[in-house]
Amino acid sequence: MKFCSECGGQIILAVPADDTRERFVCSQCATIHYVNPKVVAGCLPLWQDRVLLCKRAIEPRKGFWTLPAGYLENGETMEAGAHRETWEEAAAKVENSNLYTVFSLPHISQVYIFYKADVVDGVFGVGTESLDSGLFAEHEIPWDELAFPVVTDTLKHYFKDRKNDTYPVREGVISFKRRLKKRD
Amino acid sequence: MKFCSECGGQIILAVPADDTRERFVCSQCATIHYVNPKVVAGCLPLWQDRVLLCKRAIEPRKGFWTLPAGYLENGETMEAGAHRETWEEAAAKVENSNLYTVFSLPHISQVYIFYKADVVDGVFGVGTESLDSGLFAEHEIPWDELAFPVVTDTLKHYFKDRKNDTYPVREGVISFKRRLKKRD
Repeated sequence: MKFCSECGGQIILAVPADDTRERFVCSQCATIHYVNPKVVAGCLPLWQDRVLLCKRAIEPRKGFWTLPAGYLENGETMEAGAHRETWEEAAAKVENSNLYTVFSLPHISQVYIFYKADVVDGVFGVGTESLDSGLFAEHEIPWDELAFPVVTDTLKHYFKDRKNDTYPVREGVISFKRRLKKRD
Repeated sequence: MKFCSECGGQIILAVPADDTRERFVCSQCATIHYVNPKVVAGCLPLWQDRVLLCKRAIEPRKGFWTLPAGYLENGETMEAGAHRETWEEAAAKVENSNLYTVFSLPHISQVYIFYKADVVDGVFGVGTESLDSGLFAEHEIPWDELAFPVVTDTLKHYFKDRKNDTYPVREGVISFKRRLKKRD
C-alpha cells in the first residue's frame, strides 16, 4: 500500500494512538487503512456415498483437486457464499447444508469455513474455474493430488465422522505450509 | 475508494473480465481492489455460574453491555484474537476455550465467531475500551442494555445449552438491524 485510497496521499507505517500495531496511515489526511484476514467459504458436496471434487484451473495449485470454495463477498452470508462457489466451480446446486469445518490459517491471514451439503439430484458439471470435476468414493480420493490442507483435513474428518453418522463442527488451525506435492 | 493504493491513479467501478461483480479498479494500472467481509472474534467468558460482560466505552453502542470481541488481525488465529480481545476489553485471561457461536451479518459484511471459555481464577478488570465490566448470573443479565444481537443470541444459546451441559457449535444469520434500545 503506497497511496491513500481516500486522498491519494503518501502512506506511511505508523502505530496510531490507542493502538499497539503498525498500520497503513495516510501522511496527508491521517486515514488509517486496516488490513484484515479474509474469509473463504466452501462446501463438502455429497451425493450418496461420494464427494464432489473439482480440479483447479487457476493458480495457486492449478491441476490439483479441491472442494469448491472461494472468498466470501460483501453482503453475503457464509452459507450463500459456499453455495455460490459450488455453483461457480462445480455447476452443482446443494441443499441441507450445515456448518462443518472451521479453520484459521494465520500464516496467510485467512479463515476457511466449509458446509457439508447434499448435491441436488447428483447433478454437477465443470465450472469456469475448474478443469474437471467428479464424484469420489472414499477409496478413490486422490490424497496426493489435493490442493490444500483444509481440503485434506475436511475430507479426513468426514470419512471418520461418517462411521458414526454424526457431524459435529470441527475446528482446526493450519499454521504453516505443509509440504505439498509439486506438479510433475 | 477514490485513488489506487498501488499507483495513486483514479479508481473506477467496473466488472473485471471473468467476474460478475463491480469492483474498485484502477483506471491507470488496472489493479483490482477487492473488498471483503471482516471477521470479529470474541469470547463468552465464564466464571462459575456467571458471564463476564463489558460496558462499551466507544461507539457504536457506547454505554451498552457486550461480550469482549473485536476485529481479527492479520497473522492471528480466531482463538488467539478472541483471547486478545478478552484481555484488551476485560483484562481477563481465559482457558479451555471452544468454538461456540458463528454468525453471518451480511448487511454489515461481518462474520462473528465466539469462543466459550473459562476466566482464569475469576480475575478480570476494566480494559481501555470499556467503561465497566462485571460477572452476571442469568437473572442479572441486562437484556435491554446489550450492545449487539450477536451478544444476545450467544447468551440465549448458552443459558439454554447449559441446562443439558452440552455446547454444540451454533450458527446464525443476523440479516438486518434489529430494533435496539436507544440511549436515554
